[in-house]
Amino acid sequence: MKPSEQKKYSDIYAKERKKINSRLESAFSKREPRSLYKPSSYIICGAGKRIRPLLVLLTAKSVGGKFDVAYNAAVAVELLHNFTLVHDDIMDNADKRRGRLTLHKKYNESTAILVGDSLLSVAYEFLLKDCNGNSKNILISFTNGLVEVCEGQGLDTEYERRKNVSLDEYLLMIKMKTASMIKMCCRIGSTLGGGSKEEIKGITSYGLNLGIAFQIQDDLLDITADEEKFGKRIGGDLLEGKKTYLLIKALEKAKGEDRNALLKVIDKKGIKINQVNKYKTLYEKLNVIDDAKNLINYYTKRALKSLYVIKNENDRKILIWLADILLKRNN
Amino acid sequence: MKPSEQKKYSDIYAKERKKINSRLESAFSKREPRSLYKPSSYIICGAGKRIRPLLVLLTAKSVGGKFDVAYNAAVAVELLHNFTLVHDDIMDNADKRRGRLTLHKKYNESTAILVGDSLLSVAYEFLLKDCNGNSKNILISFTNGLVEVCEGQGLDTEYERRKNVSLDEYLLMIKMKTASMIKMCCRIGSTLGGGSKEEIKGITSYGLNLGIAFQIQDDLLDITADEEKFGKRIGGDLLEGKKTYLLIKALEKAKGEDRNALLKVIDKKGIKINQVNKYKTLYEKLNVIDDAKNLINYYTKRALKSLYVIKNENDRKILIWLADILLKRNN
Repeated sequence: MKPSEQKKYSDIYAKERKKINSRLESAFSKREPRSLYKPSSYIICGAGKRIRPLLVLLTAKSVGGKFDVAYNAAVAVELLHNFTLVHDDIMDNADKRRGRLTLHKKYNESTAILVGDSLLSVAYEFLLKDCNGNSKNILISFTNGLVEVCEGQGLDTEYERRKNVSLDEYLLMIKMKTASMIKMCCRIGSTLGGGSKEEIKGITSYGLNLGIAFQIQDDLLDITADEEKFGKRIGGDLLEGKKTYLLIKALEKAKGEDRNALLKVIDKKGIKINQVNKYKTLYEKLNVIDDAKNLINYYTKRALKSLYVIKNENDRKILIWLADILLKRNN
Repeated sequence: MKPSEQKKYSDIYAKERKKINSRLESAFSKREPRSLYKPSSYIICGAGKRIRPLLVLLTAKSVGGKFDVAYNAAVAVELLHNFTLVHDDIMDNADKRRGRLTLHKKYNESTAILVGDSLLSVAYEFLLKDCNGNSKNILISFTNGLVEVCEGQGLDTEYERRKNVSLDEYLLMIKMKTASMIKMCCRIGSTLGGGSKEEIKGITSYGLNLGIAFQIQDDLLDITADEEKFGKRIGGDLLEGKKTYLLIKALEKAKGEDRNALLKVIDKKGIKINQVNKYKTLYEKLNVIDDAKNLINYYTKRALKSLYVIKNENDRKILIWLADILLKRNN
């Protein structure tokens, strides 16, 4: 892709991100009771990438709609995303998110539970503003996304407790927990934009495959990222004993002592900080970092292939560009 | 009302309650992942009165619809109600609900947060099955109910921290936290049943006023109920220092030492168990128990008056009967 094109798409992203941020900020700024909506503002005004709302806008446009038909839905998916973050952070007992205190640490758990619920309620409120002709389809897509995210989180928790998790199980879990939301954004956008059945199907497939690649990339970044750019400690997943793609794939391939070392991560529910490099070396030896890159590549190709349904070259190319920057990101 | 009529309505209630219970039970019985849906079954199969789903069914019928048009919506409102119970129980750190361990005590907080979220997601899923022609209106009513419940819970938490809460503020809070849900059931039922604008308005007003009366009755039962029939300890609200109708009204009327005694309930965030009788006597002296009964009466009358929109006598009478048993209940 030419640098001039990249610049053009990057400018669109920056402009739309600003618009989405301003809509998100005003969503709660005057709403009562303040004891509920002030913490909602706190969480929603963090430095999010706003990928999900952007996908709603871009996919609406890709089938001939205007951005204007989809702003409320764009706000809705970002609120839904933040609802999952707030509740997940309580469940994971996380202290920080995007460099700031998590909501339950800044306030308390009760507030965070309620604010999460409330973000979801306001998400539906925004969504209902935008879906005149299509309300049932849009609402079904949104609700399916929500159901799958909850089921994915349920699986994730279940896997934490289990000793053995297969690669297929891992893929099912990330499809539900991460990819279903990206998929939903693309389905809602292309539906709101007035896409044909075939267009919606293709664009939804882009979202699903992009979402899977995105999550494997997330697992990979935990071990390969530049600590400073990443903004958090390298090897965090290993420290917590998380069953990532890397760990599961490594367990599948390793034998003897290597296998025992990997089993220890699970048995002891995490490793010590001075062991991170040892495991990184083991991952390299077993070639699972390349395996991850290959799998990301596989799903990315599938995602991009689905975009053939988009007739306008510019609209297709910006979605290719977005996939590219997401999968080359370092945070 | 004649005993034979009461028997007829009571039989309808029993029959429909059974049907609703069976639909609720099968909602989660085969769904995966079990780690998520088994706890969902646990909470949903408790001994609920199923008043909210019953209201959906009865109000659908009251405007000429059949029960059949509203079963999925009936399940949806009960799931929504249980979502609020599960999350409220975490926030209140409650041990028991309907005589059984609360979800976060039987499992853990993370599970309870996720199960609550999931109950809400499945509620939307059920709702979307039923609202072919009316999806947008039904979804808006449901979402408004959800938003108001969250805001009401926010107000309730805010009032817990404040020293002074006026009667108007209290009424606003119970309108949002309790009555909005009853109102929503009536609006959804009458919309699904195909009611006219006037019918929906009247029946919704019945729900709102019934809901307010219901909550004041709840506050009253805490002090006047027969402990054995009530199934929980008398004076629980006083022990917790909750700002109920009785306490707020008593504070409004009391002077001198009586007022100081009441302020202590708030300052000390509750009283000791051996003081319950003293405060009950004070409430009687200040006549706030009669005040509560009068206010319940006032809202009940308003509720029943709104039912004039229902043409069929039987359909109207069963809603009158339902209001009557709800406000004569002892648990």
